[in-house]
Amino acid sequence: MQLADRIARLSPSPIRQILSVIDQPGMISFAGGLPSADSFPQIDNLHVEPALLQYGPSEGEKALREQISSDLAKRGLHVSPEQVLVLSGSQQGIDLVAKLTIEKGTLVAVESPTYLAALQVFSLFGAGYLPFQPREAHALLHNTPPSLIYTIPTFQNPTGYCYTTAERKSLASVADKQGSILFEDDPYRDLVYNECERTPVCAFIERSSWVYQSSFSKTFAPGLRLGYLVCSEDLYPSLSWLKQAADLHSNRLSQSLVLSMLKHRDERLAAVVASYREKRDAFSNRLNQTLAPYCDWSDPDGGLFFWLTLKDQYTLDTQLLLQKSLQQNVAFMPGTAFFPSPIAAPSCLRLNFSHASVAEMETGLSVLAELIATGD
Amino acid sequence: MQLADRIARLSPSPIRQILSVIDQPGMISFAGGLPSADSFPQIDNLHVEPALLQYGPSEGEKALREQISSDLAKRGLHVSPEQVLVLSGSQQGIDLVAKLTIEKGTLVAVESPTYLAALQVFSLFGAGYLPFQPREAHALLHNTPPSLIYTIPTFQNPTGYCYTTAERKSLASVADKQGSILFEDDPYRDLVYNECERTPVCAFIERSSWVYQSSFSKTFAPGLRLGYLVCSEDLYPSLSWLKQAADLHSNRLSQSLVLSMLKHRDERLAAVVASYREKRDAFSNRLNQTLAPYCDWSDPDGGLFFWLTLKDQYTLDTQLLLQKSLQQNVAFMPGTAFFPSPIAAPSCLRLNFSHASVAEMETGLSVLAELIATGD
Repeated sequence: MQLADRIARLSPSPIRQILSVIDQPGMISFAGGLPSADSFPQIDNLHVEPALLQYGPSEGEKALREQISSDLAKRGLHVSPEQVLVLSGSQQGIDLVAKLTIEKGTLVAVESPTYLAALQVFSLFGAGYLPFQPREAHALLHNTPPSLIYTIPTFQNPTGYCYTTAERKSLASVADKQGSILFEDDPYRDLVYNECERTPVCAFIERSSWVYQSSFSKTFAPGLRLGYLVCSEDLYPSLSWLKQAADLHSNRLSQSLVLSMLKHRDERLAAVVASYREKRDAFSNRLNQTLAPYCDWSDPDGGLFFWLTLKDQYTLDTQLLLQKSLQQNVAFMPGTAFFPSPIAAPSCLRLNFSHASVAEMETGLSVLAELIATGD
Repeated sequence: MQLADRIARLSPSPIRQILSVIDQPGMISFAGGLPSADSFPQIDNLHVEPALLQYGPSEGEKALREQISSDLAKRGLHVSPEQVLVLSGSQQGIDLVAKLTIEKGTLVAVESPTYLAALQVFSLFGAGYLPFQPREAHALLHNTPPSLIYTIPTFQNPTGYCYTTAERKSLASVADKQGSILFEDDPYRDLVYNECERTPVCAFIERSSWVYQSSFSKTFAPGLRLGYLVCSEDLYPSLSWLKQAADLHSNRLSQSLVLSMLKHRDERLAAVVASYREKRDAFSNRLNQTLAPYCDWSDPDGGLFFWLTLKDQYTLDTQLLLQKSLQQNVAFMPGTAFFPSPIAAPSCLRLNFSHASVAEMETGLSVLAELIATGD
């Protein structure tokens, strides 16, 4: 049996592996980026138009593409509906862009740390990494130009960091100067608890090619698996053909449901954001009461995560910590998997605050504090 | 801007391009493998469990995997539910298997002609082709062993051919002897109008690795984008990780809808098959009245297509024929795109009979006959 060489670089997603244990009864999960079930829309008495059950267009439903184009204009990104490609979740956008740009040895600039399932796909296709810090994107100019720059500028996963206006312009200018394709991943932007700059970096691009993508998973419902990308016109034909080849087109029932929910987008978002803001504040509170002696962090202005760095004297192997905390029914994401070069990664934890109840936060964080305190 | 080398091998799917014109008013389409809208299930008063809107398992919903495993046992293929991977349509299975097995220069044995969107994906990843005829699979033994053998043994697309028992065993034995991975694509097997052998080729495999996939698009609803694969145990971890990386998991609402429809599978299939059998017979009738002087074909025992080969004296460029027939509001699939080596392809047409009404068949086939007769 002969497999493709890339399979030697294939790894399971650590987060998907943890998701498979968090359904166990009694488990307190800070692991996934799971929206709170309370935030899901009510879907009742649904009549499905038979026409929706037929094959549909690869690019997505016309009305949804128009709605997305018009919503993006309000964010400062002006594209025609013909530049919108509906996706089966934004993970698919990562797969399509990787196919478009990455082969063995392709240089990809990524924030360090960054979204682990993006690293999973980029590595599968053979990427080499050029890590950078959001505050120092200009340092990329001193290196070999990367083919692709992958960024999550707004409430970054895992750090929660939000780029300033100057940092956004600086990153766009690096892409322009080096002729790199800028790939902006923006699933969290609507989950904002303190106002801050959220104009897409792609809106500042002047010459280079770019792809911007977002998701309906965090604000509507992940189980519907729907997201979208928009891109510079030069990339659209290839990306839409790659989409055809990947799954012909996205689920039409999901597209219809999301379109109807987008009509009440603002009311819906206001409620979700208010509830998550409360949860963030409660989590921050409990963190201060439990983990402050052992870790450093900043409260995030948006998104779904706290990113904790262990203080020097409490540094430990967070993978081992996870094994022990799972035995006490507490799940979280060890930081290592988020680093393009995990060997030199600092000792970090990513904690999701949207899924657990306030009582669970209390219990779960106390368990973590005790395990870290005893170095056990 | 630097794209991956594979993008030079990327092409749009000819069928998706035609699908974009067949929605025009008045168009008679024999082009796609579109199920008849009459065959779609009624979905009314649907209540969606909020739990279904959360992220789900990459492998698919447990109850659906169990149902698929039990249905496959009735087909002669015995696998545990843990060997089932739910897909976002079976096109996705082609993408995953290509990632698993194909890189530049990988030798893939394919029937000639075969499903064009499989060729699209295999070519993107850099496959070289070893074409074979269903009746002569043993000829593959005289060649360099292919890494992958792709086959549609039951109501093949585009030819409609159904392998005999001996031919199924012969192909399985080729895979076993050469250590090739057998990839069986089986979307049409339930659309059977004359009983014939339909045991999966994979059921005859003794040693080699294999992947078997099927779809709910042809018997339930393509718009829900749901299919599945099962495979030999050695391949399952890699394929499930590739699935994670491609779209995390498949739509949970679709999975729930399909599972509930599978409970009434037999009644539903009986009605669909009866209606398609009538359509096949009507189409065969009209073909005999219109195209018999110009083409050869066999009535298919199942599936959705008639495959016509133009008689020598009427040979013409079917791409040009399509341009002309579209002007008269008739769409079909030229045969060329189905051949791994299109240059030497004979002059063929694939005609779908499930979508058009009987009156449309009459009109559409007369248009084609006239265009072919005048060589125009």
